[in-house]
Amino acid sequence: MVTIAVDAMGGDYAPKNEVEGAVMALKESGNRFKIVLVGQSEKVQPLLDEQDTTGLSLEFFHAPEVIGMHESAATAVKTKQNSSMVQGLALCKKGSANAFVSAGNTGAQMAASLLVLGRLEKVMRPTIGAYFPNPSGVTMVFDIGANVDCKPEHLVQFAEMASIYLKYAQKEANPSVGLLNIGAEESKGTDALKQTHKLLRGAHEKGKVNFAGNIEGGDVLAGKTNIVLCDGVVGNPLLKFGESIPHFLSGLFKQEIGKLVKTGKLPMESAEVIGKAFKGMFASFDDEQFGGVPLLGVNGVSIIGHGRSSALAIKNMIYRAEEMIEKRVNEHIAEVLADA
Amino acid sequence: MVTIAVDAMGGDYAPKNEVEGAVMALKESGNRFKIVLVGQSEKVQPLLDEQDTTGLSLEFFHAPEVIGMHESAATAVKTKQNSSMVQGLALCKKGSANAFVSAGNTGAQMAASLLVLGRLEKVMRPTIGAYFPNPSGVTMVFDIGANVDCKPEHLVQFAEMASIYLKYAQKEANPSVGLLNIGAEESKGTDALKQTHKLLRGAHEKGKVNFAGNIEGGDVLAGKTNIVLCDGVVGNPLLKFGESIPHFLSGLFKQEIGKLVKTGKLPMESAEVIGKAFKGMFASFDDEQFGGVPLLGVNGVSIIGHGRSSALAIKNMIYRAEEMIEKRVNEHIAEVLADA
Repeated sequence: MVTIAVDAMGGDYAPKNEVEGAVMALKESGNRFKIVLVGQSEKVQPLLDEQDTTGLSLEFFHAPEVIGMHESAATAVKTKQNSSMVQGLALCKKGSANAFVSAGNTGAQMAASLLVLGRLEKVMRPTIGAYFPNPSGVTMVFDIGANVDCKPEHLVQFAEMASIYLKYAQKEANPSVGLLNIGAEESKGTDALKQTHKLLRGAHEKGKVNFAGNIEGGDVLAGKTNIVLCDGVVGNPLLKFGESIPHFLSGLFKQEIGKLVKTGKLPMESAEVIGKAFKGMFASFDDEQFGGVPLLGVNGVSIIGHGRSSALAIKNMIYRAEEMIEKRVNEHIAEVLADA
Repeated sequence: MVTIAVDAMGGDYAPKNEVEGAVMALKESGNRFKIVLVGQSEKVQPLLDEQDTTGLSLEFFHAPEVIGMHESAATAVKTKQNSSMVQGLALCKKGSANAFVSAGNTGAQMAASLLVLGRLEKVMRPTIGAYFPNPSGVTMVFDIGANVDCKPEHLVQFAEMASIYLKYAQKEANPSVGLLNIGAEESKGTDALKQTHKLLRGAHEKGKVNFAGNIEGGDVLAGKTNIVLCDGVVGNPLLKFGESIPHFLSGLFKQEIGKLVKTGKLPMESAEVIGKAFKGMFASFDDEQFGGVPLLGVNGVSIIGHGRSSALAIKNMIYRAEEMIEKRVNEHIAEVLADA
């Protein structure tokens, strides 16, 4: 049976959402896997006592330290070897768990994952992506901040790893890759982007990626490709900009609706119905439905979630971890990269 | 009197919108400036004949060639010396006009402006920005695609020029500058971003920019700073992503509303009122209200508009040109850069 270590101390609402999410996953899946909650017993145990965990394949592992959400990643990982983050990953390293899930400090999780699990053979740099909505589903953007100053070879590996993830874990038969640039023409962008374009064509010819050429910012929400490839200095602002849209527009929308109700142009009843519809519209922007994303390229499974993760998001992150293991994503990555 | 040359052949709806916009500007402003429409007489003259131009300070200058919207910029500028674009800028160069306005091929306009007008003294690279809405007004992002592979010194100059533009032309007393990065901490990002951060601190101490530190993608729509500074490879995707939001969300919104009407939860009447409000909400995303943006750093005034510019947008671009001249933006830029 697959065992998933869950960082009970990571995230803005830890350990509450983590405990609830883990219990939810086990109940919903009918104990399809085993979960080890990793964290401070004095904080986690009382919450576990509140839950009915009878018959659940749930264990607890005490880790006395906690890495804070805003601690410097490098320092925290070095100095807090007994943190839930490092200890949870260590469980994976020594084979007691098959995957680690956390909504904690992202920088620390990336650093600790790399340090404890190491890289898959031939991987130059691990990468993480994020989901963006499109009219018929989702687009994944890689890299969203794990890497800056990427060399063309790094970006090509991201494309290869992302393609495998989408193919096996997300059941996208032949995921297309677009290189995010300032124009669609091959001649656009920096020398690094031109070189990346050329290398991606080569990888396409070898059947390693389904390269669709350069794409532009407007193609992301249009869903022109399944994967959008860019350096983290581009992907990170894009992701955070995207995440800020619902809040910004909700403010504008409330104002507009308020005016209409005040001037009698819209019945209050309709305004309420509309308000809910407006929120529903943004469900597709919500990372909760996916929970988190794997750090692709490490020698193990480390699922990274948003600090604000709800119990539902934690539950879905656990499913993401299960997928990574069941679909043997890392084995497929190693295979494709070995054949360079 | 200020003379503004307007490219009658630039833009997706040229020369119709260009002619209408020019006439609109002169009528609305009461002939506050002179406009020279530059383009093919056989195309422009019939449209002028349709308008009542009696008493307007409007002239026409024949330019037999047209640079297409999708032509390669470098080639077009070299081979089409008799195009409305090159000829309009030449009018500025020889002093027959004080500014040039175009909704044509942006790449060609940047190249031709640089070639014909040259740079202001000490300017390393000209830059263009774009407006993004925020809850209380607008934020300008520089650079949005005129430059890639920017060195820290380039970015600092963009910040200086943008600050002067906002201060003098947009009446923003002490515009703040945020450096778009993958995190707020000084230690974040590439070496180039760290160095830019350092140089901006220096420029801040000298009173040349009001530097607010690193900002993140979510700070753009929040309006954390008046100016957002980044390389064109970051700014361009961000702009085009932003521009794609209204279309994407309108699709989603229509679906949601359609469902509510169909299930009887929302009266058709309310749906129509709401539809209009939804469109109104996106007015703040519309570049029409500004028309266009100046190419900052060239030795003259070249206002760049969107290909899809309406007559209203053209009119507003003409006002932008007038502002650049009246507020002596270039003189202020030269002054600040001279004092390095």
